[in-house]
Amino acid sequence: MKHTLGELAALLGGELQGPADLYIEGIAPIDQATPREITFITQRRFARLADQSRAAAFIVSQEYARLARPLIIVAHPYLAYARVAALFAPPVRRWSGISDLAYLGPDVALGQEVSIAPLVFIGAGVRLGDRVTIMPGCVINDEVRIGADTLIYPNVTIGERCTVGERCIIHSGTVIGSDGFGFVPQDTGHVKIPQLGTVVIEDDVEIGANCTIDRGALGATRVGRGVKTDNLVHLAHNVEVGEYSVIVAQVGVSGSTKLGKKVTLAGQVGVTGHIELGDGVQVTAQSGVYHSVLPGQTLSGSPARPHWEWLKIMGHLPKLPDLYKRLKQLEQKVSELSARLKQENEP
Amino acid sequence: MKHTLGELAALLGGELQGPADLYIEGIAPIDQATPREITFITQRRFARLADQSRAAAFIVSQEYARLARPLIIVAHPYLAYARVAALFAPPVRRWSGISDLAYLGPDVALGQEVSIAPLVFIGAGVRLGDRVTIMPGCVINDEVRIGADTLIYPNVTIGERCTVGERCIIHSGTVIGSDGFGFVPQDTGHVKIPQLGTVVIEDDVEIGANCTIDRGALGATRVGRGVKTDNLVHLAHNVEVGEYSVIVAQVGVSGSTKLGKKVTLAGQVGVTGHIELGDGVQVTAQSGVYHSVLPGQTLSGSPARPHWEWLKIMGHLPKLPDLYKRLKQLEQKVSELSARLKQENEP
Amino acid sequence: MKHTLGELAALLGGELQGPADLYIEGIAPIDQATPREITFITQRRFARLADQSRAAAFIVSQEYARLARPLIIVAHPYLAYARVAALFAPPVRRWSGISDLAYLGPDVALGQEVSIAPLVFIGAGVRLGDRVTIMPGCVINDEVRIGADTLIYPNVTIGERCTVGERCIIHSGTVIGSDGFGFVPQDTGHVKIPQLGTVVIEDDVEIGANCTIDRGALGATRVGRGVKTDNLVHLAHNVEVGEYSVIVAQVGVSGSTKLGKKVTLAGQVGVTGHIELGDGVQVTAQSGVYHSVLPGQTLSGSPARPHWEWLKIMGHLPKLPDLYKRLKQLEQKVSELSARLKQENEP
Repeated sequence: MKHTLGELAALLGGELQGPADLYIEGIAPIDQATPREITFITQRRFARLADQSRAAAFIVSQEYARLARPLIIVAHPYLAYARVAALFAPPVRRWSGISDLAYLGPDVALGQEVSIAPLVFIGAGVRLGDRVTIMPGCVINDEVRIGADTLIYPNVTIGERCTVGERCIIHSGTVIGSDGFGFVPQDTGHVKIPQLGTVVIEDDVEIGANCTIDRGALGATRVGRGVKTDNLVHLAHNVEVGEYSVIVAQVGVSGSTKLGKKVTLAGQVGVTGHIELGDGVQVTAQSGVYHSVLPGQTLSGSPARPHWEWLKIMGHLPKLPDLYKRLKQLEQKVSELSARLKQENEP
Repeated sequence: MKHTLGELAALLGGELQGPADLYIEGIAPIDQATPREITFITQRRFARLADQSRAAAFIVSQEYARLARPLIIVAHPYLAYARVAALFAPPVRRWSGISDLAYLGPDVALGQEVSIAPLVFIGAGVRLGDRVTIMPGCVINDEVRIGADTLIYPNVTIGERCTVGERCIIHSGTVIGSDGFGFVPQDTGHVKIPQLGTVVIEDDVEIGANCTIDRGALGATRVGRGVKTDNLVHLAHNVEVGEYSVIVAQVGVSGSTKLGKKVTLAGQVGVTGHIELGDGVQVTAQSGVYHSVLPGQTLSGSPARPHWEWLKIMGHLPKLPDLYKRLKQLEQKVSELSARLKQENEP
Repeated sequence: MKHTLGELAALLGGELQGPADLYIEGIAPIDQATPREITFITQRRFARLADQSRAAAFIVSQEYARLARPLIIVAHPYLAYARVAALFAPPVRRWSGISDLAYLGPDVALGQEVSIAPLVFIGAGVRLGDRVTIMPGCVINDEVRIGADTLIYPNVTIGERCTVGERCIIHSGTVIGSDGFGFVPQDTGHVKIPQLGTVVIEDDVEIGANCTIDRGALGATRVGRGVKTDNLVHLAHNVEVGEYSVIVAQVGVSGSTKLGKKVTLAGQVGVTGHIELGDGVQVTAQSGVYHSVLPGQTLSGSPARPHWEWLKIMGHLPKLPDLYKRLKQLEQKVSELSARLKQENEP
C-alpha cells in the first residue's frame, strides 16, 4: 500500500510543501518513523523531535509551516493523522460468507455479504443487516437484530431480543443483554425480579472489550448514537446514555441513570442509580457521582462536587497537619493572653 | 399470555378492587403501561403519575387504596411486581437435549432434561444435574459438578473440579476457577504458587456477567447459598462469601477474606485480603475496607470508617479552605492582641 | 502421587528432622492438613496452630526448629511451599494433539506437541511454538505468534498480529489486542483513530482472567518479561509494563503510560495516560496516579502522593470536625479578649 504525498495532501485538503510524487508507505510516531513513512505533530512536546526524525514527511499545523522538511499543512493535524492512519490500516479480515462450522437457528434473516465465522452461534429469528461481520466464538441469541456494516469481534455475547444499530463495533468478550441486578430482599432470601427488557444500541456506537450492558427490567437500556465506551465498562439496567457520550475504561453506571448528550465519564468513575447527568457533563477519573448534575458541569471527587471546588479542597488537604499544629499553637497563645489579661486585672 | 385481574389478585394474595375478569397482558412502568398492562406503585414519586397513566390496573399498598382505578392492594408492591413479572416473563429458550455440535468428554454424567447447546465444551467426568442448561460457547472443564435447575448463560468458563449448586444462574463471560494470584517474589522473578484448590458455589446463587472467581490456593473459594453478585465482580482465592450477601458491580475482594451473612458491598468497593466482615456489614460505593469489621456496621470511604463518622468528615471537608483562611486571620488578630498587650505593659 | 519426607527435604535443600521414609500425599494449610499431608508455617499467627495440627510434617524456618514434629527446615518456607505444591499439583489436562472440532486457518505453523482443543479458532498464518496449549473456546486470530510452553485457558481472544512469549499463562476470558480507545471529537461525532499497532507479551508473563490489553495505536503495547497481572486489569494502547512488575485486580492503566521494572500496582489503582512510573514504584490500593513518579517511591491516595504524606493527612482527616469546632471557640475567645482589651483602654 503506497500513496504519494500529493495524494495524501489532496485527501486531507492540506497545503503541500514538498515533492508531490514522494511515495509514502505508512504512518508512524515522530521518533519511530522510517524514511518511507509520514509522521505528524499534534503537540509541542513532539515538535522538538522533528530534527532527529527520519520521517519522509510531516503532517503539521500552520505553526510549524517553516519546518524544512516535506510537509502537509492542515488545520487539524490530529484529525489528519486519523484519516491517513485509516488509509494505511489493513482491512479487517472477515470470513467470506457463512462458515459451515457456525450454527444458524431457524428463521434467520441475513442481508447481503454477511460474514459469519466458524464457531458462531446465531439464534432463532436473528436478523443481520448487509455486510455485518460476526467473528468466531460469538453468541448472538434469539431475535437479536444487528444493523448494516456492524462488526462484532470474537467471543461477544448478545442476549435475546437486543438490538445493535448500523456501523457499530463491539469488541471481544463484551456481554450485551445480561440480566439487570434486581432482587427483593426477603427473610427467606432474595426474590429475583425478572428482567423482561432489552438493550438498544443505536448507530455508530463502539463498545470496548469485556464490557457488560444489562437489559432493562422493563423497557430498554439505551446507548445513544455515536457513543464510544472503552473496556470493562458496566451499564446497569435501564441506563440511558445520550448521543456522542464518551465512557472511559472501568466506569460503572447504576440502574435507571440517564446520561445526557456528549457526557464524558473518565476512567473508573462510578455513577449511582436513578439520577440524571445533563448534556456535556464531564466527570474526572475515579469520581463518584451521587446526585443529578446540571448540563455543562465538570465534577471531581467522591462524592463528586464541582471541579474547581474539589481542586480548592484538594489544594488545602496537604495543609491539614500544619493547620492542626498551628491551631494548637494559637490555642496556647490565646490561653496565655487570656491568663495575662486576667492577672493584670486582678488587684 | 393473558391473566385476569382476579387471577393476579389471587396469586398475590392481594385485595382486588375492580373487575376480576379484566384481561391483563403484561406489566410495565407507570408512565409506559398500555391499557392492556398492569403497573405498580413502589415509591411516592411514581404515585403522582397515576392519573396520567394509561395502565389497565395498579398494584399498590394500602396507602393508595383510594385511587379510583382497578387495584390490587398488597402488603409489599415491589415483591408483587417481581411475582407478576415472573408470570409474564418469556421462558428462557433452552436447546432441546444435547446438541450434536457440542463436545462431550468421557465419563460425563447427565441428569434428566439436561440442555447442552451447540459449541459447548464439556470436559471429562463432568456431572450435570436434572434440567441444567448450558448455553452456547460455554466451557465446563473436567470434573465440574453442576446442581439441578442451574442455568449457565453463553461463553461462561468453569474450571476443572469446581462445583456449582442447584438453581444457580451464571451470566455470560464469567470465569469460575481461574488461578488465584499467588507468587513468591525472587530475584530471578516471581515463582508461581500452584493454585490447587477449587471454587464451591452453593445453591440459589446468581453471578453477574464477566465476573472472575478464582480457585483457592489450597482448599476452596466459597460463595454461600443465596448470594447475588452483579457484573465485573472479582473474588480472589479462598474468599468466603456468607449466605445471602449482595455484591454490586465492579467490587473486588482480596484473598482469604471472609464476608459474613447478608453482607452488602456497593459498587466499586475494594476489600483487602485476610480480614473478616461480620454478618450484616454494609459498605457504601467506592469504599476501601482495610480492617476487619464487626457485625452490623455500615462503612464508607477509603480507608473505610463508620458511615456516620465519614459523613461528618465529608460534611466538613468543603469548609477546609475557609477554615484555613479563618485560621490565618485569627493568627493575625492574636498577634496584634499580643503586641498591643506587650506595648501596654511596657513603660 | 506420593513422596517421602526425605525426597521433599532433598528437593527443597532443607534440613530434615524426622523420618526420611515418611510418605507424604499432599500439602494443606495447618488447620486442614490430614496425617498424610505436609503443612508449612509462613507467619507467626499460624505457628500457634501447630500443636493442634494433624499434619504429618511441617515446613518451617529455623525459628521453629524446636517444634517436636517431623520438620523440614528451610530458609524460605513460603517459597518451599510453592515448590512442594507444584510437586503435588495435578498436571494441567491438555487436549492430546489437534482436535477435529477446532478450526485451523491456512498457513498455520505448529511446533511439536501442540495441543488445540475442540471449538478453538486459529486464524491464518498463526505460529504456535512447541508444547503450546490452546484450551476450548479460544480465538487466536490471524498472524498471532505464541512461544513455546505457553498455556492459554478457555475463551481467550488474541487479536491479529499480537505476540505472546514463551512459558506464559493467559487466563480465561482475557482479550489481547482489542482496539485502543482513540477518537478525534468532531461536531459530527467522534472520528475513530485506526489502531494499527499490536500487543507484545514477553516471556514468563501471566495474565489474569477477563483482562483487556489493547493494541497500540501505532507501535506496540508491551508487557515485559515476568510480569504478572491479576483479573479484570485494563492496559490501554501503547502502555509499557516493565519486567517483573505486578498488577493486582481491577487496575487500569491509561494510554502510552510507561511502568518501570518491578512496579507494583495494588487493587483498583488507576494510572493516567502519558506518564512514567520509575522502577520499583509501589502504589497502594484504589490510588489514582496523575503524575510521573521517580523510581522507588510508594504512593497512596487519589490524587496519589508519597505514602508517608498521605498517611499523615489521613491521620488528621478524622480530626477535621473537632478542628472546626475548636477554631470557632478560639474565634469567640479572641473576640472576647479583643473586646475586653478595647474596653480597658477606653476611659
